[in-house]
Amino acid sequence: MAPIDDSEKEQTEVIDSPIVVQLKKLDDDYLELHRAYEKEEQELRRQFSNRQKPLLEQRTKDLLVSEGSEDPATGTPALKGFWLKALSNHPQFDGEIEEWDEPVLEYLRDIMTVDLDPNDSTKGYRLKFLFAENPYFTNAILSKEYHSAESSPYTGEVNVSEINGCTINWKDGKDVTTALVKKQKETKKGKNNKSVKQESKEEQEPRTSFLRSFFRSLKEGSGLPESIHQDELERIQGEAEEGMDEEEMVEAIMSNDYDMGCAIRFNIIPFAVRWYTGEASPEGDEDDEEEEEEEEEDDMDEE
Amino acid sequence: MAPIDDSEKEQTEVIDSPIVVQLKKLDDDYLELHRAYEKEEQELRRQFSNRQKPLLEQRTKDLLVSEGSEDPATGTPALKGFWLKALSNHPQFDGEIEEWDEPVLEYLRDIMTVDLDPNDSTKGYRLKFLFAENPYFTNAILSKEYHSAESSPYTGEVNVSEINGCTINWKDGKDVTTALVKKQKETKKGKNNKSVKQESKEEQEPRTSFLRSFFRSLKEGSGLPESIHQDELERIQGEAEEGMDEEEMVEAIMSNDYDMGCAIRFNIIPFAVRWYTGEASPEGDEDDEEEEEEEEEDDMDEE
Repeated sequence: MAPIDDSEKEQTEVIDSPIVVQLKKLDDDYLELHRAYEKEEQELRRQFSNRQKPLLEQRTKDLLVSEGSEDPATGTPALKGFWLKALSNHPQFDGEIEEWDEPVLEYLRDIMTVDLDPNDSTKGYRLKFLFAENPYFTNAILSKEYHSAESSPYTGEVNVSEINGCTINWKDGKDVTTALVKKQKETKKGKNNKSVKQESKEEQEPRTSFLRSFFRSLKEGSGLPESIHQDELERIQGEAEEGMDEEEMVEAIMSNDYDMGCAIRFNIIPFAVRWYTGEASPEGDEDDEEEEEEEEEDDMDEE
Repeated sequence: MAPIDDSEKEQTEVIDSPIVVQLKKLDDDYLELHRAYEKEEQELRRQFSNRQKPLLEQRTKDLLVSEGSEDPATGTPALKGFWLKALSNHPQFDGEIEEWDEPVLEYLRDIMTVDLDPNDSTKGYRLKFLFAENPYFTNAILSKEYHSAESSPYTGEVNVSEINGCTINWKDGKDVTTALVKKQKETKKGKNNKSVKQESKEEQEPRTSFLRSFFRSLKEGSGLPESIHQDELERIQGEAEEGMDEEEMVEAIMSNDYDMGCAIRFNIIPFAVRWYTGEASPEGDEDDEEEEEEEEEDDMDEE
């Protein structure tokens, strides 16, 4: 149990009537049994996870077969872009992956997950994205850690305190998270500042990108990361509730990020094939797409 | 597995390449192990639940002790309004319980839950609210059933198809979900319809109430229930996304209702004492209250 400070302890002792003390004892006994259940449940999960592991390993092997493949230089020669498609079909990644992220993610060979603490899954987990050799970056693995803790034994809710991404070592001129942008540059001439010459210059500017947003680090209680792109920030501000400060926005980003991590961990890694084929996508998604297209058309009509 | 219709089956067969067929086999084997895990996990949960049951029964007994109680005619003489307070302190019930619901809920003696299908907890559950004899209604138990089903094996998401509440048999003039409202009644006189006499008449009108909203029945795909109060409807419409139709609003109500049910089932019933004392309430709630008070003060300043 977490230590409580004296003033709090005192206050609790003052408030608790004998009947409350008596009932709390029952509550504690209930919690003790709940903890014992959780321990056994975790052991059970570990057992089954060990039995499932060879199936996932076999999947990775099958996807590596390059016989008859058009493009053996991809991460999954047997089915080009397997993981990109599996990720893209999950609703949690809707609008997250840009077209310039796609050729990079085609080099994904496998995604793996592991608990940070093998004895306590509430403490968080690591995701590992294994890449084939590719023209974009030199990392063989991009990894990411979610650090969390149970926020209350009475709700079972988990609170994410920190997300640690990794640095992507982009090859020269291959960083898809930036783009060359033509910029007008003003050059002042003369003393009266009136004669201005405009020079056109190309500059490498950041742009929205899954590879930018998904591998950055975030921390509870901190301000917005510097690497955040203006478009992403505007989207978050648009979705944010009124009066949200920077810290609360970071919390919202972390919560969305954690949901993406859990989608990978609990849905996509186990059943990647069904996400690849689209069979696992929730019903009605096609309707949504149709509706969106219609809306877009409407928007165009209005213009 | 659910049967799939022929056209769907045919389509899948046409699309699947040998490698996809091969990978789907691995996916199915993974799912089979996942099902085996779920079965063992459910058995484990049942075992622990049986060990925890006597603790909950002891709690009910302890709360019934009327010795030294100011008001032995309440549902929990040892701690008057125990369940009302436990419910009210959970964030899921914020703004749900009106002041006229409160004296009724003070007669709550116990809340219990049971799976509809003892072998499959995804099929839904029943909540039973046990009441002491009270001046308001004749039911000894108000009950409610949530019918659900796993919507996809690949996400583990549960879909609620139906919520069945019960009829409350209010004693004469004791229905707190309605109130006497003075109404101006127009009485037309004369042929030209110009001479109008206004009569004041008192009528029993519905008002927002936890006891009204929580025990009504709802069904997926149906329209809004007749019993819905105008204020509640306006609140839902205010929260609803733009372009939501009636069916989607019912879905949103059902989803919120299901969350309330789960809060009772997984948080409040197990640890009712900590909800009663407020120790289980999430951190920062006090701050929120303070902020709200400040905001209210600000609003008053502006007026």
